[in-house]
Amino acid sequence: MSEILAGDKRAIARAITAVEDSNVEASRLLKELFPHTGKALIVGITGAPGAGKSTLVDRLSALYRSRGERTAIVAVDPSSPFTGGAILGDRIRMQAMATDPGIFIRSMAARGHLGGLARATADAVAILDAAGYNNVIIETVGVGQDEVDIVKTADVTVVVLVPGMGDDIQAIKAGIMEIGDVFAINKADREGVLRTEKELQTLLQISERSDGWVPLIVRTVATEEKGIDELASGIDRYREFVSSNPARFEARRSSVARARIIELLRDKLLLAARAKGVTDEYLDGAARMVSDKTKDPYSVVDEVISRLGL
Amino acid sequence: MSEILAGDKRAIARAITAVEDSNVEASRLLKELFPHTGKALIVGITGAPGAGKSTLVDRLSALYRSRGERTAIVAVDPSSPFTGGAILGDRIRMQAMATDPGIFIRSMAARGHLGGLARATADAVAILDAAGYNNVIIETVGVGQDEVDIVKTADVTVVVLVPGMGDDIQAIKAGIMEIGDVFAINKADREGVLRTEKELQTLLQISERSDGWVPLIVRTVATEEKGIDELASGIDRYREFVSSNPARFEARRSSVARARIIELLRDKLLLAARAKGVTDEYLDGAARMVSDKTKDPYSVVDEVISRLGL
Repeated sequence: MSEILAGDKRAIARAITAVEDSNVEASRLLKELFPHTGKALIVGITGAPGAGKSTLVDRLSALYRSRGERTAIVAVDPSSPFTGGAILGDRIRMQAMATDPGIFIRSMAARGHLGGLARATADAVAILDAAGYNNVIIETVGVGQDEVDIVKTADVTVVVLVPGMGDDIQAIKAGIMEIGDVFAINKADREGVLRTEKELQTLLQISERSDGWVPLIVRTVATEEKGIDELASGIDRYREFVSSNPARFEARRSSVARARIIELLRDKLLLAARAKGVTDEYLDGAARMVSDKTKDPYSVVDEVISRLGL
Repeated sequence: MSEILAGDKRAIARAITAVEDSNVEASRLLKELFPHTGKALIVGITGAPGAGKSTLVDRLSALYRSRGERTAIVAVDPSSPFTGGAILGDRIRMQAMATDPGIFIRSMAARGHLGGLARATADAVAILDAAGYNNVIIETVGVGQDEVDIVKTADVTVVVLVPGMGDDIQAIKAGIMEIGDVFAINKADREGVLRTEKELQTLLQISERSDGWVPLIVRTVATEEKGIDELASGIDRYREFVSSNPARFEARRSSVARARIIELLRDKLLLAARAKGVTDEYLDGAARMVSDKTKDPYSVVDEVISRLGL
């Protein structure tokens, strides 16, 4: 543990692998690290594929570095349940930034059908927080429920859009609009930026937030390092807004903690069931019966639940 | 139950609402309906927002209708956990198609933090299958893990792309490439269709499938009803490929059943825990302790698990 608190990159990487594997060791470590967490600014960045999130995250990290802040990036790819590894772009980024001791980059992907990616990501963030990174950026690929769950554990959430995504704004609006504290319209040198901005403003006006915050809209061109200062100050402004009111601050912290507990519980319940006889062999056998139609899946699960005494 | 088997739309709609609420009634009904399932062709359609999936699904349904087949559409929006309702487009579609007794359209959205959308969707599909729809199309918004889980319960999966999505193909390739049995390049009248097709072919060549199937690529322009025949016959061809080999057919069925059991289990475990004292009040109290740092989330969950005797 002391190595992690001292910021040893290799120890941190090992610990993150342990939480991905969700072993007993990891659980003990996380309990020990918990009192050391809560200092980092945790920024969630989400948006449709192709919006340029990775470049934006790189630029934002560089800005934080120029302020002398240590920054960790956790790139989460829930749509990659099979490869279990880093996406191509991250490998390139890792090479470029790996030499900077104040930068840590890690890719996380779903390991299999039983993995709790949101839980593992939150655990990894806790490790990086305890390790003394001033900022931890969670970058997600995709816009599904899993991504929403993941960014829900961040202090600030940035949603990235690109001009001409009219259809997309329609498609993703419901869930995403409500989790975005700051909106970055990236590739803002493209045609249609004004229209996208106006559509976004209209949508934000309709969906009033319970905390009274009016989400900020920032134009960026990440490839040309434009608008990154504005993005960083947008993030800071939301943080100040939350911190300025103790009740509001407490409400946000509690809701993050609640989301965290539920993710952990969902994961640990399944692990506990696995340990109590719901093995791969059992699942394979049950699946065969269901596909043979000799048994229905609801009865299979009812039996498991009652055998577990629940 | 007889009303559902007779295809009564109102009874079907009520049953789907019951499975969304996950009540005891629903569980009993699903067990009774199970022997009547397994006849429908279940088609999963996924892809990035803005790819034109809804229009493509509408055109495909119209084609199935012209063959005299009854068709149900289940539109799933995991990125919409807050509104809990239909997305705008679906409301419009419902009006247009609601008059056709051979078409059934239903939107499903995550109801809250504890909802199992993949499980509820699979249950809804089972109801529609038992109700005698020849085809059930599951349409997802977004490209996250949840979407992958959802389409994994389909007989055939169609991934929809659009020209010029180079970045997106990179971003979504890992998970999506492996679940796509048929790829539709929609809006194929746009510039860049050839390049997208070539990139896709290259990616498909790299990722060889264990079942030996080489995914088909179809060009469509859904708004002009182009390529819909080709899409439908691509779907049929994959079905024939699977059915032509009993071992292969059995393997696919089993893997669908296994995914189904795990989704159900994940959901029911949490519900069982909720019934055994993990109430909203309990969660709120625990969240406060975690955010106060008087307790760590791992210990909270360990206590719950041990109190449940797991």
